[in-house]
Amino acid sequence: MEQKNIPDVVIRRLPVYLRVLENLPEDFHENVISSFELGERSGVTPAQVRKDLSMAGAFGKQGLGYDIHVLQDKLKKILNLDKEIRVAIIGVGSLGHAIARYITQRYSAERDYHLRLVALFDTDPGVLGEVIGGIEVHHIDSFREKARELKFRMVVIAVPAEAAQAVMNECAVAGIEAVLNFAPVHLKAPEGIRIHNTDLSIDLMHLAYYL
Amino acid sequence: MEQKNIPDVVIRRLPVYLRVLENLPEDFHENVISSFELGERSGVTPAQVRKDLSMAGAFGKQGLGYDIHVLQDKLKKILNLDKEIRVAIIGVGSLGHAIARYITQRYSAERDYHLRLVALFDTDPGVLGEVIGGIEVHHIDSFREKARELKFRMVVIAVPAEAAQAVMNECAVAGIEAVLNFAPVHLKAPEGIRIHNTDLSIDLMHLAYYL
Repeated sequence: MEQKNIPDVVIRRLPVYLRVLENLPEDFHENVISSFELGERSGVTPAQVRKDLSMAGAFGKQGLGYDIHVLQDKLKKILNLDKEIRVAIIGVGSLGHAIARYITQRYSAERDYHLRLVALFDTDPGVLGEVIGGIEVHHIDSFREKARELKFRMVVIAVPAEAAQAVMNECAVAGIEAVLNFAPVHLKAPEGIRIHNTDLSIDLMHLAYYL
Repeated sequence: MEQKNIPDVVIRRLPVYLRVLENLPEDFHENVISSFELGERSGVTPAQVRKDLSMAGAFGKQGLGYDIHVLQDKLKKILNLDKEIRVAIIGVGSLGHAIARYITQRYSAERDYHLRLVALFDTDPGVLGEVIGGIEVHHIDSFREKARELKFRMVVIAVPAEAAQAVMNECAVAGIEAVLNFAPVHLKAPEGIRIHNTDLSIDLMHLAYYL
């Protein structure tokens, strides 16, 4: 692939464009979309859209725009969404529950691409054995074994702050490649793991500035 | 205040610093923290820490660092976290539920600052009247009236995509100032409202690139 060194800020916007393309209103009958229209629906300037997409190797036709299906395929391919992606969640408290439901409900088989929830982990005897969206909650002690067996490489961490780094280290040992961390603590990524830290409370505190 | 024009990317990091200061381990006995240490725990370079904090009007002592309590107070003040912030949630599906529990459990009265959940809204008869963390779910029809009565200015939107823009417009009419949107659609902010769009699925698709 020639698109190896796309900056992360650009990568970040590609799923936004893809989401727009997949959710165009029913009265949108065109086969092409202009950078203006795509930008408008994504909250990005048309110039930025063109720059981002050319970095991703997608080029529109002057005065016409981008072929919607070609662009969708291109974006899916770059984002690895043309294959099934298996995801596990560690921590099945109220947030972990919500995320599990979200993933199982949202990424149904009707979609062209699949983020598929394949495993849930916790340590709380109160939730072990529980089944959410067809997936059983296992004890974290079986994490490595299950990772091998179920072949998931992406993990969502939704445990309390004090447990998060230990869980992260466990992911590293098990060969996990990408982690989305919801625990309210900055986690250090062991070499070879891509980690995104996300935190509702940071979002809320950030917004408070603007009140 | 002289710190009026702090760029949003800097504002975004201030809650991260504040969280680090509030969660220093028990064996951290110092009254000061160096930009190196603060950066290390926040995932930011020491130079960036110094730049961000000086923009926020906080200055450390050469060779010593920042007085922890002074810095906490300064950050809280800038982020408006020295006063109570009242929050409402619209949409009490599984994600809205999780967010409601998160806010009520996390921001207890023991903390120096309070993001306080004061109202919940939905349209689904199945959840109307339900009480989560002491807060009852009201019909969205009473939103304006409740906004006036309970004086909340920040709202979390956790409704399905197709309902989100209508809910956003309702917020505008009610004089809401800041919105955190979890609906999987880019919302246009009416004038005077600060909006952050956040989306689990975008995070997951973004991470997929790195697999």
